[in-house]
Amino acid sequence: MNYRMIGYVIGRILMTEAALLALPGITALLYGESLLPFAVTAALLVAAGLILGWKRPARTAIYARDGFAVVALAWIIMSAFGALPFVLSGDIPSYVDAFFETVSGFTTTGASILTEVESLSRSGLFWRSFTHWVGGMGVLVFVMAILPMTDGHGMHLMRAEVPGPSVGKLVSRMSDSAKILYGIYLAMTLLEIVLLMLGGMPLFDACIHSFGSAGTGGFSSRNLSVGAYNSPYFDVVIGIFMLLFGVNFNLYYFLLIRRFRDVLKSEELRAYLLIVGAAVVVIAVDISHLYGSALTSLRHAFFQVSSIITTTGYATADFNVWPTFSKGILVVLMFVGACAGSTGGGIKVARVVILVKSALADMRKMLHPNAVSTVRFEGKPLPERNLRGVHVFISVYLLVFTVSFLLLSLEDFDLITTFTALAACINNIGPGLEVVGPTGNFSAFSPAAKLLLSFNMLVGRLEIFPMLLLVAPSIWKRRLVHHGNAAK
Amino acid sequence: MNYRMIGYVIGRILMTEAALLALPGITALLYGESLLPFAVTAALLVAAGLILGWKRPARTAIYARDGFAVVALAWIIMSAFGALPFVLSGDIPSYVDAFFETVSGFTTTGASILTEVESLSRSGLFWRSFTHWVGGMGVLVFVMAILPMTDGHGMHLMRAEVPGPSVGKLVSRMSDSAKILYGIYLAMTLLEIVLLMLGGMPLFDACIHSFGSAGTGGFSSRNLSVGAYNSPYFDVVIGIFMLLFGVNFNLYYFLLIRRFRDVLKSEELRAYLLIVGAAVVVIAVDISHLYGSALTSLRHAFFQVSSIITTTGYATADFNVWPTFSKGILVVLMFVGACAGSTGGGIKVARVVILVKSALADMRKMLHPNAVSTVRFEGKPLPERNLRGVHVFISVYLLVFTVSFLLLSLEDFDLITTFTALAACINNIGPGLEVVGPTGNFSAFSPAAKLLLSFNMLVGRLEIFPMLLLVAPSIWKRRLVHHGNAAK
Repeated sequence: MNYRMIGYVIGRILMTEAALLALPGITALLYGESLLPFAVTAALLVAAGLILGWKRPARTAIYARDGFAVVALAWIIMSAFGALPFVLSGDIPSYVDAFFETVSGFTTTGASILTEVESLSRSGLFWRSFTHWVGGMGVLVFVMAILPMTDGHGMHLMRAEVPGPSVGKLVSRMSDSAKILYGIYLAMTLLEIVLLMLGGMPLFDACIHSFGSAGTGGFSSRNLSVGAYNSPYFDVVIGIFMLLFGVNFNLYYFLLIRRFRDVLKSEELRAYLLIVGAAVVVIAVDISHLYGSALTSLRHAFFQVSSIITTTGYATADFNVWPTFSKGILVVLMFVGACAGSTGGGIKVARVVILVKSALADMRKMLHPNAVSTVRFEGKPLPERNLRGVHVFISVYLLVFTVSFLLLSLEDFDLITTFTALAACINNIGPGLEVVGPTGNFSAFSPAAKLLLSFNMLVGRLEIFPMLLLVAPSIWKRRLVHHGNAAK
Repeated sequence: MNYRMIGYVIGRILMTEAALLALPGITALLYGESLLPFAVTAALLVAAGLILGWKRPARTAIYARDGFAVVALAWIIMSAFGALPFVLSGDIPSYVDAFFETVSGFTTTGASILTEVESLSRSGLFWRSFTHWVGGMGVLVFVMAILPMTDGHGMHLMRAEVPGPSVGKLVSRMSDSAKILYGIYLAMTLLEIVLLMLGGMPLFDACIHSFGSAGTGGFSSRNLSVGAYNSPYFDVVIGIFMLLFGVNFNLYYFLLIRRFRDVLKSEELRAYLLIVGAAVVVIAVDISHLYGSALTSLRHAFFQVSSIITTTGYATADFNVWPTFSKGILVVLMFVGACAGSTGGGIKVARVVILVKSALADMRKMLHPNAVSTVRFEGKPLPERNLRGVHVFISVYLLVFTVSFLLLSLEDFDLITTFTALAACINNIGPGLEVVGPTGNFSAFSPAAKLLLSFNMLVGRLEIFPMLLLVAPSIWKRRLVHHGNAAK
């Protein structure tokens, strides 16, 4: 492990976080609130950043495992510092609660321990939602630029993540890919802010909800989430933008360079839209008796499907009271998740498509043992090791889920709350059902459970392995073995 | 497909079922009940058997797919006929209900639509439980003798099923293996009957509960299941026998031929006992406040863990009222299931062990890309295709579970009932939680849902693929393609 380089990179990231605190700082000034919480946190961040990132190390080469350590540590440390303003301002007095809320923000989960958000300071609300936007940007760079780099380092597991041509391949230098991604991401966020303001939403609220959709996070400035506005226009705009931020960002790059055919041919995009379309229609029919008008049912169904499959978690209706069939569909969508290469969480549509196709191929092979059966994905035969990667992902995911489920059940909430609270955290959605339903929150969990759920949010956000490797003793201990290998 | 041979084999199986009806017939005579339901059913079975199995076809060679068709069809047709006595005697007036109950019997699930069993005729109760015993015998032959035969026919998926040395390899001829299995199975059942009678249980009840444990089925003659006797002795005897019937039967064969070391070295057995031991201790502590005495808590914990992990489904206590942690453990055990090569259902301990080990190996490989990481199981390196088989099993299992879950949620029961009813059926357990909890039953489901759950019981019992292939259109249609392949 190149510890110096890991420290250096994290130091730089902390300095960036300090700079990002300027925005909530400005918000505080505009609303006449105290600047102190942000100033103190920024000062601490700069100090830590200077200590860690003072001097660029001589040896800058890092391996996949170093990259994983950087990513996992950065997310944790950024959250540890990012929680401070909430504690200092008194918005969230408990540090564990503030840490949970900040992890939930940076991982774009949107799970909240707040029973009531409207009494928070404006600058606190802004920072809370801004973490979504920053986290979403981090995720994009992580899955588009860092994960593909790990090829050839035993990281074939991750390759299914970017099944189409990745930005990393299209543009030679990583910083260029990152810039293009940031540009698209920023432009789409601004467009959403403008469209919401055109519908009459105040700038502050428009920012909050655009940050929340962009990162597919789901923090709102209103207790009733988007439902508070009771506006079909806002529902449709936010619903569409959530869906758009759940699309693989490679496709937006293709749009930019006018490769429209590649976008239309995308198998993952088609599957994604097909699942959304089918779920919306079926749920709209299933809930029509609750809302009278077909249009209202369709609106709520569209918004909720878009919100859940993209793992955003905004709500316009209390789906706790929907029929079991509709709730069942939402629970399944919680696990499906958005497209690979988006800001959304979950298992990812690409992996689900690959799982279904490989299962069908294997069954065909049983009937016709001599027939050649290759799984094709996005128009190309899928290499065996990518398929293996998807299977390994699913089994590790199930193991982490099972162990966490047992630990969380110690809290003695009902099984639905336990199961969906965990599903909502590991898939980075936000709300679950029952106690943690759209009108509830995570405040009733114990501090230990909040830390466990924070861990799960990070596990889900970082495609499972970086966090698990971070807690594996051998990554820190077996330096000799590892150096021996690296020397080969 | 060798349709003639499939018909012939099924014909012979139906004749055997007719012969098996002699036992409930004798029970009817002993208790002065009508012999008619069994006589009529036996006559119909003989007629159908004669039509199908009149003449041994000239070409007797069958392929894996024919074997699968035989197994799947045999289980369905046996249930279709086996349901008749219940309807004819008036014990279960609705044919769909009787069919569900009989599928539940033959698949050794033990899920019941009966709200009250004690008013059933003695002969009906006997037949109901006897289907468990017959089904358990069928399962043993299926997983020990038929599945291994499918090797080299693209059926590598199944090989993980019999990870140790299989009986098929130890004894040259299949009929010999079957005889040895039947012998062990019969001897263990008789031993349990004797032990229960020594404790004062009447012969009839002892038969019922020994059939239920042997097949890991779970039908009882009492409304309160084993809890009705309120006897620590019965709890312990039945608890231990359930555990024993959940062990890979290869190991009993090893005991017979005095290869004790192979038994002690069995990795699956160790994992199985470790899981059971840990679950019992943890649950006993968790429920101790409910039962006062530590011994009572331990007894209930042991019985319930044994009953659920072996997928039997007997109950001595209403675990619906246990704390969420204990219920959570039971839900996880529902999926783990018993050992491969036993009469138990579920995913199987062997598969779970392989999944965990391969996940750990893959994570090690991420840290040390150049290190060689082979998954070892039962002392030998696990071939890649067996590992692949386990992964495919899990993904197809998840897909079937998800689709069935959505369909079942149309019944609009709560999510826990929906989820655990399905888990209880596909894993061949019997009771779930809430509505279908240990004191509840499946009567409230619609006929369509009962058929769906019957399908799931069969899917789970036959290791998923035979049933899925049976409903695949191509197995019946593409005869040309298939003959072309077979000719190669």
